[in-house]
Amino acid sequence: MKILGIDPGLQITGFGIIEIDGKGEPKLFEYGHVRTAASEGLSKRVFKIYARINALINEAQPQVMAMESVFYATNVKTAITMGHVRGAVMVAAETSGIPVFEYAPREIKMSVVGNGAASKEQVQFMVQHLLGLKEKIEPIDASDALAAALCYWHRTNLK
Amino acid sequence: MKILGIDPGLQITGFGIIEIDGKGEPKLFEYGHVRTAASEGLSKRVFKIYARINALINEAQPQVMAMESVFYATNVKTAITMGHVRGAVMVAAETSGIPVFEYAPREIKMSVVGNGAASKEQVQFMVQHLLGLKEKIEPIDASDALAAALCYWHRTNLK
Repeated sequence: MKILGIDPGLQITGFGIIEIDGKGEPKLFEYGHVRTAASEGLSKRVFKIYARINALINEAQPQVMAMESVFYATNVKTAITMGHVRGAVMVAAETSGIPVFEYAPREIKMSVVGNGAASKEQVQFMVQHLLGLKEKIEPIDASDALAAALCYWHRTNLK
Repeated sequence: MKILGIDPGLQITGFGIIEIDGKGEPKLFEYGHVRTAASEGLSKRVFKIYARINALINEAQPQVMAMESVFYATNVKTAITMGHVRGAVMVAAETSGIPVFEYAPREIKMSVVGNGAASKEQVQFMVQHLLGLKEKIEPIDASDALAAALCYWHRTNLK
């Protein structure tokens, strides 16, 4: 099965797909990011991200989508803007009948690093390690997206 | 031309379409709302709203969409959640190539009531009056959606 992880953001939305092989181990299938410029205007930026993720889903045919749940702390403006992107990628997932799983940031870090307070760099290192890659995943948004996908795998694998 | 106004909300999203007649006056074309239940889950709720607005756009063929811009005050959780719905309806608009116009809440109230601090009930009364209706528009979410559409008409009419 393929798991699509998303790290939603208006400037950069990271995405990553892992594929679970016959032994139940995760392998990297694809990753990347969508970048939008402020000059494009909010609705066009949101649509651009939607369109890219929608195309990705149609091409790669993942079975589930995983992403961080909403956080209510830090920068309110950023969080509201991120809400727009989250709504758009949810539409992309649901259009293809793909269920969306959400995990708290701490939950993702705990499952990938074993420490709910891990830094993004630690997550990046462990994503690389868990997927047996020689190079680290960049940008970090794509690494975070893969971490969400790995969290889904980890959580369902334990059951 | 037809102007689609939206009042985005996860529980209730109001919508309303006005049509500008040959004399440049706004007439009511259609209004309504989409209601979602918490039990449906966030992504399915967002998708339900997207699907309804998308169908509405395909049926009624409005030329533009108008809605309130994001507010950063009051309830942060509500604002972030509303962001999801805004993202979803923006995707619906942009999918059909419809430009999205955003107005500050004060701007809409000013254009419909002549007072930027007007209550929702005052807006509701003036929407009814401006559209020459015998009954008031309910729910108030649909009235707010029509107010956004009237704001677009008012702003472009002045130019």
